[in-house]
Amino acid sequence: MSSITVPPPKCLQKTFVAPRRHMFGPGPSNVPPRILAAGAEPIIGHMHPEMLEIMSDIKSGIQYAFQTQNNMTIAVSGTGHTAMECAIFNAVEPGEGVLTAVNGIWGERAAEMAERIGTWLLWDTFHMAPCSLFLTRALWVALAKHKPVLFFLTHGESSTGVVHPLDGIGDICHKHNCLFLVDCVASMGGAPLHMDKQGIDILYSGSQKVLNAPPGTAPISFSERACQKVFNRKTKPVSFFLDMTWLANYWGCDGKPARIYHHTAPVSAFYSLRESLAILAEQGLENSWQRHKEVAEYFHEGLENMGLKLFVKDKNARLPTVTTIVAPPGYDWKEITSYIMKNHNLEISGGLGPSVGQVLRVGLMGGNSSKASVDMVLEALRDALRYCHKSKV
Amino acid sequence: MSSITVPPPKCLQKTFVAPRRHMFGPGPSNVPPRILAAGAEPIIGHMHPEMLEIMSDIKSGIQYAFQTQNNMTIAVSGTGHTAMECAIFNAVEPGEGVLTAVNGIWGERAAEMAERIGTWLLWDTFHMAPCSLFLTRALWVALAKHKPVLFFLTHGESSTGVVHPLDGIGDICHKHNCLFLVDCVASMGGAPLHMDKQGIDILYSGSQKVLNAPPGTAPISFSERACQKVFNRKTKPVSFFLDMTWLANYWGCDGKPARIYHHTAPVSAFYSLRESLAILAEQGLENSWQRHKEVAEYFHEGLENMGLKLFVKDKNARLPTVTTIVAPPGYDWKEITSYIMKNHNLEISGGLGPSVGQVLRVGLMGGNSSKASVDMVLEALRDALRYCHKSKV
Repeated sequence: MSSITVPPPKCLQKTFVAPRRHMFGPGPSNVPPRILAAGAEPIIGHMHPEMLEIMSDIKSGIQYAFQTQNNMTIAVSGTGHTAMECAIFNAVEPGEGVLTAVNGIWGERAAEMAERIGTWLLWDTFHMAPCSLFLTRALWVALAKHKPVLFFLTHGESSTGVVHPLDGIGDICHKHNCLFLVDCVASMGGAPLHMDKQGIDILYSGSQKVLNAPPGTAPISFSERACQKVFNRKTKPVSFFLDMTWLANYWGCDGKPARIYHHTAPVSAFYSLRESLAILAEQGLENSWQRHKEVAEYFHEGLENMGLKLFVKDKNARLPTVTTIVAPPGYDWKEITSYIMKNHNLEISGGLGPSVGQVLRVGLMGGNSSKASVDMVLEALRDALRYCHKSKV
Repeated sequence: MSSITVPPPKCLQKTFVAPRRHMFGPGPSNVPPRILAAGAEPIIGHMHPEMLEIMSDIKSGIQYAFQTQNNMTIAVSGTGHTAMECAIFNAVEPGEGVLTAVNGIWGERAAEMAERIGTWLLWDTFHMAPCSLFLTRALWVALAKHKPVLFFLTHGESSTGVVHPLDGIGDICHKHNCLFLVDCVASMGGAPLHMDKQGIDILYSGSQKVLNAPPGTAPISFSERACQKVFNRKTKPVSFFLDMTWLANYWGCDGKPARIYHHTAPVSAFYSLRESLAILAEQGLENSWQRHKEVAEYFHEGLENMGLKLFVKDKNARLPTVTTIVAPPGYDWKEITSYIMKNHNLEISGGLGPSVGQVLRVGLMGGNSSKASVDMVLEALRDALRYCHKSKV
């Protein structure tokens, strides 16, 4: 007699085939066949010598993409949010202060994460209008007054389409004995970034944007200054899984001869991540920055020629990877994105967090950053504006 | 002039090809071509309707594998350790008590996780000798005395090779107003398990064992009783990423019409997980349990015929998925595993945590659970004992 009370589900009998789609939203972006193939290589062990070599390659690739010589450079076994928690959990102890520049959703989330582990917050200080850049003078005043141990800033704010300047901020933080933490999930590889030269202490990104790897791994790096704080804590970080003392050992960054089992790394995802970093290295980081810039400018010009308005007025503050377009007046933005998905097999998305209802967002990242992709998006938008408009009159 | 200070790394110029290997350690296990192919399907968005359908399929597949009708059933975007933290972070608030049965490394780790978020621990109470099973009488006394809100037990202890009986424990926990949390990472699909019938309140597993999917996703389910506690907390869980309030919404388990963006799920890894659950449903859960049992018995007999001793003396306490063999006296266990990897292209491993230096561990899970695999391992062991022994005489 069967002991089973829950029968096998019928829905799993269906063969799954993923639809082919132009992934021109803010991420994930299309994964090229070469990276998909790498991810489909047979599994090996998370502690096998070949795996440790792959991890060493990934470390080198991240050092290149971040422009850093930091030894403490790894990939977290998780998404960008996991890396964000990894940074905050390790850098801050309960009762210490975190200052967060809120220029979109990511700053809000960083503030929420810091709050959950019992740090005090100053996020209102820098709760800016969606597209504004803060003044270093205001930062100086806030640091002097509140003495936080960590200052969080998003480099490429994919919710608003803003790229925030980084030069000089690290110096100001260091003069106030504060670590400079930067989120470059949406900007890495698509906009100039120099971790060491710009005095960034902790920098993290994601795999599914310019790198064109599947979501699920997240590069992160810690400066010497950050390591001094992270490895001299009085309390353990709340997460065992994200404890850098363990992760540093697994990634061979702690100088110890033996690797101790910490967790089972996502082997296939590391294969893909390695391949995506190899492609970036082949193409050259500066070429990639330049291409994203040129393609974005070509795109922005095309949008303005169509009569559409860009959400970020200041040309220098426009993120080259994710463009925010003012939601065309008189249209329902959801109708536009649905129409384009249905008729052009192409994803663009609406706003997120503070930009919900206000914008359309188009991401052209990594292999998707090309004039051919721009032409496709412009054609789809033109068609949608014609069709969706007509349907309302 | 180039602004780059870190050149592209040469190591990434090498084309990566993963070695083909028999993965007969305690995990990850070999991933069959069908699951690798599913993982290499093109990327879609983490909120696309097709993705939500895949997640719904995964939910049904986990309900089947766990034998539960719990609505609150999802896959965590991370490894087994992430699921372990998800369970503890959500179920417990600071100052509440957690009782942990330590019958191998996983109990130790659960205790460490609980300690980090400021709960008190009673783990010494059940710090058992590696292969012993605890008595329900002792559990009754400990629950009555210390009044923990959560009791942790590992079903399949892959470090020691023990499968712990589960019947009756849920009832005892519930009589003491305590939730029953079970780790079935190494046992799910390979040993009988009935979440609902056995009164388990929180159950989690991993993708890389019997399911034969790549590591990186982790099934988890919460009973109604667990949900009552999890969704009526006074404090937020320390992790935003693992907050079940957010995850329940993303997985469509909270009854709300709209899904709100929480994190970017590992899309490819969910493809693989779905396929692995489809295979389990095709084969039938009871058939899988039965096959793992028969193959393990065949293996154990073969080992004893070779003069090797099993680490777990009690036949009923032997985990069918991971076998622990007493490290043969007079041999260096590392020499044996290295020899077998080098000459047979086959992974078996040494001990972990409390069993380090004492055992060899062989995992035959999912598609690897076959008499053909057993014969391969026995032949490799025979060869190693001959060769490694000779090399020392």
